Amino acid sequence: MTELTIGIDIGGTNTKYGIVDRSGRVHLQGNIPTTQFEEFQDYFDAMASVLREGIKQLPANSEIVGIGIGAANGNYYTGNIERATNLKWKGVLPLANMFTSEFGVPCILTNDANAAAVGEMIYGNAKNMKDFVVITLGTGLGSGFVCGGVLLNGHHGIAGEVGHTSVNPAGRYCNCGKRGCLETYVSATGIKRTVYKLLADHLEPSELRGISFDHLNTKMITEAALRGDIVAQEAFEYTGRILGMKLAETVVHTDPEAIFLFGGLAQAGDLIFKPTIRHMEANLMPLFRGKIKVLPSAMQNQAAPILGASSLVWDFLDKKKSVLA
Amino acid sequence: MTELTIGIDIGGTNTKYGIVDRSGRVHLQGNIPTTQFEEFQDYFDAMASVLREGIKQLPANSEIVGIGIGAANGNYYTGNIERATNLKWKGVLPLANMFTSEFGVPCILTNDANAAAVGEMIYGNAKNMKDFVVITLGTGLGSGFVCGGVLLNGHHGIAGEVGHTSVNPAGRYCNCGKRGCLETYVSATGIKRTVYKLLADHLEPSELRGISFDHLNTKMITEAALRGDIVAQEAFEYTGRILGMKLAETVVHTDPEAIFLFGGLAQAGDLIFKPTIRHMEANLMPLFRGKIKVLPSAMQNQAAPILGASSLVWDFLDKKKSVLA
Repeated sequence: MTELTIGIDIGGTNTKYGIVDRSGRVHLQGNIPTTQFEEFQDYFDAMASVLREGIKQLPANSEIVGIGIGAANGNYYTGNIERATNLKWKGVLPLANMFTSEFGVPCILTNDANAAAVGEMIYGNAKNMKDFVVITLGTGLGSGFVCGGVLLNGHHGIAGEVGHTSVNPAGRYCNCGKRGCLETYVSATGIKRTVYKLLADHLEPSELRGISFDHLNTKMITEAALRGDIVAQEAFEYTGRILGMKLAETVVHTDPEAIFLFGGLAQAGDLIFKPTIRHMEANLMPLFRGKIKVLPSAMQNQAAPILGASSLVWDFLDKKKSVLA
Repeated sequence: MTELTIGIDIGGTNTKYGIVDRSGRVHLQGNIPTTQFEEFQDYFDAMASVLREGIKQLPANSEIVGIGIGAANGNYYTGNIERATNLKWKGVLPLANMFTSEFGVPCILTNDANAAAVGEMIYGNAKNMKDFVVITLGTGLGSGFVCGGVLLNGHHGIAGEVGHTSVNPAGRYCNCGKRGCLETYVSATGIKRTVYKLLADHLEPSELRGISFDHLNTKMITEAALRGDIVAQEAFEYTGRILGMKLAETVVHTDPEAIFLFGGLAQAGDLIFKPTIRHMEANLMPLFRGKIKVLPSAMQNQAAPILGASSLVWDFLDKKKSVLA
């Protein structure tokens, strides 16, 4: 019997799903548009339907042992998505209970960055680590903490929101309602805002002057920087400086072995890693200097969110076994 | 047979020790001056000698089951004090191994704020909590994190140094070598520095204008504030504002149920709690607002450091039992 898990990543635009084995092989995957459904129940029914179809296609000797879901504002303890600002369905969505009722297997829900952290531990570069942080750099900045080999969930199930620590209380407006949050500077959106700030402040010519805010993306900024564009290079230095300064604060909280950077911005390589590490070291309490690795995530592919979500189930089953043993 | 533990708190000036039972009753206590010994070995020999004398005085049916030590820069994993800036003995001091060799029982060493956190869990206001933070406000600002019922030690054994997060990178000089660390603003020393800054900046009369920096202490500032002294009151508001802003950042890391304030500054009651809570709430990511308790530590007495240190042993033995069970 081959044990398989379902991994679901609920994004504001798309929901990705896949069926994954313990080694991380994705046997089947697909996606449905999250935005297409006015009613949450219709969305759930559509998801249940595509998953049932998927399960029918599996070999006879396979068994689904659980469902993992990563979603912004997913609460590990309640299994609910609560007050998500990126979804049109308001209130409390009891997703884990609904999937468990429908499929008769455990369903583990947490926020997408926490799922990325468990994914890094089960399939990625943190396989032999017990204390590390994953920073996801997408539309926003997410973070997941593993401490002593255990995902840090916190008392209310919402630990790991370092995207909403403060860079400048009078700074950029944030979706969360505050101003100056880290994610308004360090994320795919943050670096775009920085490029526009630099274009406004400075006189240097830049190939980015011809691109609208709506069209600008991390890949364009990265390529411009690699071609020597001064504004693009300065945008990475500015982003790395702020990320490095804030990571120095995160480090003294939980003392991790490593911090993994995940997402498009992390794929810019030295452009982002070099200033981040330099400014982290410069701002670290001396006791910690030279001790903390800043590394790229191993999960840099299309299936990463599915693997992260599916890893929640393996982690849950592993820990259950070790308690029962 | 009555099980007892030895608790030792190594401060820069004094070392306090005591013999404690599981209920927190201190059967015997004393102290020796830490600064009196030029050589570390002489200090250890003196400590071993007073403890052997203490043990002789215990009733015949009692047994020492372990030794707990709280000390700045104490490393939980190695059992060493490493690079302590408050002690005259430099290098690595293998204290836990030396006590274990001398007395034949487990010796658990960690930093003093971590010991305070475990003390709060074993004897204090966090008895039924699994996720909380203790902030110790003394000469500096220490912090200890309990996550999922377990003391957060981190990968290198040095987690919980939020006293060295940054308030202002160009701010006050800190003993750690950096500038603008939280503890230079929020601690017994920090509020003194704030009083002096306010006396320098403002014209208001204040009874604190007659007191030298060396003589000024938290109790004087508290009493002046209670008598209506504007500078003293403003010093508490300033201190609480910075503490509140930084606690809002700590909260989004680990999502605690409660934050306990310990130490002289915490004993100022509303003077410190009110601005701290107000500014924490104002700066919190909205998802966390109204969820986090800020409470006084229950360990506000002379024996607190001894109880904190001794609690390390009970916590160690409890967890050992639960693993072996």
